[in-house]
Amino acid sequence: MLSETGDPWLLTPGPLTTSLSVKQAMLHDWGSRDRAFIEMTARVREKLAGLVEAGDTHVCVPIQGSGTFVVEATIATLLPRDGKLLVLVNGAYGQRMVAICRYLGRACLALETTEDTPNDIAALDRALAGDKAITHVAAIHCETTSGILNPVSEAAACVKRHGRSLIIDAMSALGALPLDGGRVPFDAVVASSNKCLEGVPGIGFAIIRKSVIEGCKGNSHSLSLDLYEQWRGLEGNGQWRFTPPTHVLAALDQAIQEHEAEGGVAGRGARYAANCRALIAGMREMGFRPLLSDNLQAPIIVTFHMPGDPAFDFEKFYRLVGEKGFLLYPGKLTVAPSFRIGCIGRVGVPEIERALQAIRDTVRELGVTAFGPTRS
Amino acid sequence: MLSETGDPWLLTPGPLTTSLSVKQAMLHDWGSRDRAFIEMTARVREKLAGLVEAGDTHVCVPIQGSGTFVVEATIATLLPRDGKLLVLVNGAYGQRMVAICRYLGRACLALETTEDTPNDIAALDRALAGDKAITHVAAIHCETTSGILNPVSEAAACVKRHGRSLIIDAMSALGALPLDGGRVPFDAVVASSNKCLEGVPGIGFAIIRKSVIEGCKGNSHSLSLDLYEQWRGLEGNGQWRFTPPTHVLAALDQAIQEHEAEGGVAGRGARYAANCRALIAGMREMGFRPLLSDNLQAPIIVTFHMPGDPAFDFEKFYRLVGEKGFLLYPGKLTVAPSFRIGCIGRVGVPEIERALQAIRDTVRELGVTAFGPTRS
Repeated sequence: MLSETGDPWLLTPGPLTTSLSVKQAMLHDWGSRDRAFIEMTARVREKLAGLVEAGDTHVCVPIQGSGTFVVEATIATLLPRDGKLLVLVNGAYGQRMVAICRYLGRACLALETTEDTPNDIAALDRALAGDKAITHVAAIHCETTSGILNPVSEAAACVKRHGRSLIIDAMSALGALPLDGGRVPFDAVVASSNKCLEGVPGIGFAIIRKSVIEGCKGNSHSLSLDLYEQWRGLEGNGQWRFTPPTHVLAALDQAIQEHEAEGGVAGRGARYAANCRALIAGMREMGFRPLLSDNLQAPIIVTFHMPGDPAFDFEKFYRLVGEKGFLLYPGKLTVAPSFRIGCIGRVGVPEIERALQAIRDTVRELGVTAFGPTRS
Repeated sequence: MLSETGDPWLLTPGPLTTSLSVKQAMLHDWGSRDRAFIEMTARVREKLAGLVEAGDTHVCVPIQGSGTFVVEATIATLLPRDGKLLVLVNGAYGQRMVAICRYLGRACLALETTEDTPNDIAALDRALAGDKAITHVAAIHCETTSGILNPVSEAAACVKRHGRSLIIDAMSALGALPLDGGRVPFDAVVASSNKCLEGVPGIGFAIIRKSVIEGCKGNSHSLSLDLYEQWRGLEGNGQWRFTPPTHVLAALDQAIQEHEAEGGVAGRGARYAANCRALIAGMREMGFRPLLSDNLQAPIIVTFHMPGDPAFDFEKFYRLVGEKGFLLYPGKLTVAPSFRIGCIGRVGVPEIERALQAIRDTVRELGVTAFGPTRS
């Protein structure tokens, strides 16, 4: 039961299954300094800023590479050399920001909760009151380590109250979970081409408050990752400073059109929410136990506890479900053995139902009967 | 007279016109942590190292982004924090390496010749003898600012004699100009997916001596651009540390197969050389003057002096030739007004002949008759 292009369905945090029309947009070649491509870049930048209702106040700065590239670029460009970043950590992506600060030599404080606990806003409030050296705060909208939804609106209100600058990592949320720049004050939000926008991987982007980026000259540690210079270049002649992944941008341009046609953030988010409900209901029925309670679960990716039954060997389970046409995802939790199933990409409830059938069949083949915690 | 996918022919330094089959390789989706993609990554890495006859001594480390990303990543990973880089500069790409060192805070010395003069090996010899602080030398195989072929073999021999480390930027050469790691000693050579390999843009790669990269832990200024950690990750589980541009890699995998089918470096280089000869002959016949003498000209991209005739307006010329199906490229020379025409990508002599006809027609439409230097 493969996709329309004969590929397994990707039930992962990305890269995802994309539509055929998104991939077909790559069946052309563009001159990266030609007018047609300059217009495509401008169109994509404007639409992306519009997705977080920030077209009037912010500018979208795309950059080559993966999500981590744009996270690093944004921290390096926004924080002055003597700045200090507080990171709200409850998973690997928050930890990665801390690692980035170590590379950059920027002061950093991790405010951590466990992987199944949302960011602690009261603790953030106390930290900002107590440490005047903190200039910036980073929050992760949906931490895909667990799939948890973090309280970014509350974090934003708190950061604003303390007069600091907020960077939101909305990598696996933007395009599906609402984020309104008019109501949630942020100085930057970062995301990438290949998550809820359903493009192909190769481009990240930051949507940065114009009054902020104007003051960021000279902050960056890296020529390639300098978003101030990238922005200046784009504003100057509409061109990327260095060769852009032209085909990836064309796919993103098409993906944004398809996102609009689906009803934008509301439409995309509703489909993912339906996928997520169907997935959790079906998995629970088999006996699998999701990590998070429903009120903490973002409709992006779901973490399940590894069944304790010795008959459940994840490598074998992954391979057998994969042979039936569905690629799942290993766990990243440190607190408990787990695996993950994504509900994003060009999939709907019918594909989720077929994936559930593949999992049901595999569970039977493996002879798994006990889904409780691993005996230890 | 458009390409088979209805696009203008890209007579630029890249992105280039690629084959339909290379683009069609992107009509699939891959899980970036799945076995099929891990195998594709391994295959591409191995083939790329083989292209410079360095499969036994060196490892290929791919990285997301443009050529500049991998140049920066290589300098940052190979040079220790107290290292010093001598850059052989005769154009914008050499200057860019100097700019990278400024960002990195690494000591740097530019050994410059004019844009139409190859690197000065005698001066290199004197500089290395006189400055023991220099740990690394960077040379650019073909500097596309002018299209000049630099004497990388001579540079390599000189650097080896002095016991220093050589980084070759073969961005616009690898795959078309021979470079034999067994005879030209280098510690790293860098290039990208979208030049003479005729893939699409989005991936750069460095082919680094194994005994060198093993000692590079902790050098890099950047998490995203740390080629030591990228290599360790690839060696560990075959996966990219951060989401790779899966479709771009698939296109590169196909492009490498087509490169082999064309007869490898010799076959590809012969086609480009024929393109270059046809281009220069046709342009000379019209009256255009190439910047470089034939012995300095790499068969990659050709710089022509801007005709002095006031009827020659480059913007108009570019647009009119573009409307006929051929995208040319602006000049980057600082020494004289110029423009460039590439002879690489999926084009042959028939396309070059048609491009020459388009240029001939445009010259007539504009009423250009005098091709000598600009009056000033």
